Amino acid sequence: MRCLLKGNGVPFGMVLYSYFRSSASYRVRCALHLKAIEFEYVPIHLVKEGGEQFKPEYKMLNSMSQVPTIVDGDFVLAESMAIIQYIDSKWKEPPLFPKSPKQWAPILQVCEVINSGMQPYQNAIVMSRLEKQYGFDEGKRTEWVRFFMSRGLESLEKILSKTSGKYCFGNEVTAADCFLVPQIFSADRFKVDVGPYKTLQKVYENCEKLSAFQNAHPSKQVDFQ
Amino acid sequence: MRCLLKGNGVPFGMVLYSYFRSSASYRVRCALHLKAIEFEYVPIHLVKEGGEQFKPEYKMLNSMSQVPTIVDGDFVLAESMAIIQYIDSKWKEPPLFPKSPKQWAPILQVCEVINSGMQPYQNAIVMSRLEKQYGFDEGKRTEWVRFFMSRGLESLEKILSKTSGKYCFGNEVTAADCFLVPQIFSADRFKVDVGPYKTLQKVYENCEKLSAFQNAHPSKQVDFQ
Repeated sequence: MRCLLKGNGVPFGMVLYSYFRSSASYRVRCALHLKAIEFEYVPIHLVKEGGEQFKPEYKMLNSMSQVPTIVDGDFVLAESMAIIQYIDSKWKEPPLFPKSPKQWAPILQVCEVINSGMQPYQNAIVMSRLEKQYGFDEGKRTEWVRFFMSRGLESLEKILSKTSGKYCFGNEVTAADCFLVPQIFSADRFKVDVGPYKTLQKVYENCEKLSAFQNAHPSKQVDFQ
Repeated sequence: MRCLLKGNGVPFGMVLYSYFRSSASYRVRCALHLKAIEFEYVPIHLVKEGGEQFKPEYKMLNSMSQVPTIVDGDFVLAESMAIIQYIDSKWKEPPLFPKSPKQWAPILQVCEVINSGMQPYQNAIVMSRLEKQYGFDEGKRTEWVRFFMSRGLESLEKILSKTSGKYCFGNEVTAADCFLVPQIFSADRFKVDVGPYKTLQKVYENCEKLSAFQNAHPSKQVDFQ
């Protein structure tokens, strides 16, 4: 991990602390690329040396010892859901949420099905806890993840089969797509068959045609392994 | 569970599907009472008869089979984070988020530390899965919950020790308080000692003096057991 503060001690521009494979980091990368915001990418390796996220200088930025964190000028913010709403409020185009509450609230709902209903069961801290404290081998950990992931994917398919066009909600990219694409990537990583989820597959394929999603992909990050 | 739709098939007013002990339901009850919104309370028992949340008529409203769900007129919305932001946008007073992004984004961050960083590890589906699939007895389940809860409480204490006044952010109640109070209630339920978290205790005690939080408390709900 490089020095967190630059020059006179105050960072400038937008800095993203990220791990290539972290799906929460991936969401924020999608949003930054969709908005064409220039940012500096600072890798935080979640495994190496016991995890760079636990180093005291990073914990000062993110008290949960997680990625992502952004530093926008002197403003520090964690949690992908908060970050994406903040980015959308400061950089207006293209909007990631429509203006009407009855339009943006269901998009938030879909983001949360993923954010609080799926991702918490597959992240680094849980995988590590299951293995080290409870002796879950890889097969048992994968079974654990697949249960929660399948439950979420079924729910998303039901919702999005009614709302989607090319993307999750109609034919314009929204925050929901920034959450869905990394989740489908994670499903693939845990070898969950997304074949039954036709809507999710369609949306994923349409997003993957866009340069913003291509640039946000784990394989395109400097810390990709 | 009573009939989900009234009269001509379209519900009117605000309806909250809730379980007295669900901390996500509790958050929404805090918001509704703070805004003084009249609502009809429909209990969804998460345990009885295998769980009312799995009944087909409820799954039509909430494809994740979770509480809470609101029905506002003919508008159905799930996920407490989405619901609270929706409520705040429609009923302006008192505001649960300040207007400036650099003020509301850290509040969202705190909500998410709880919403995606703590609650997913203590909710009904996880407790049931740990018990039935992996044979975790009560002691082992409690140990599981306490690990994730302590981690979150430590993070919250660090953040809120810098931002709090009477409440999480200064001297006005915000959405963060609607998330914190139910989480402290859950900590008590799992016998996690909140003694070391002086800021959280202070905020909790100040919130509990307000009638909105008193009325939202699990013990005040019609389905309390």
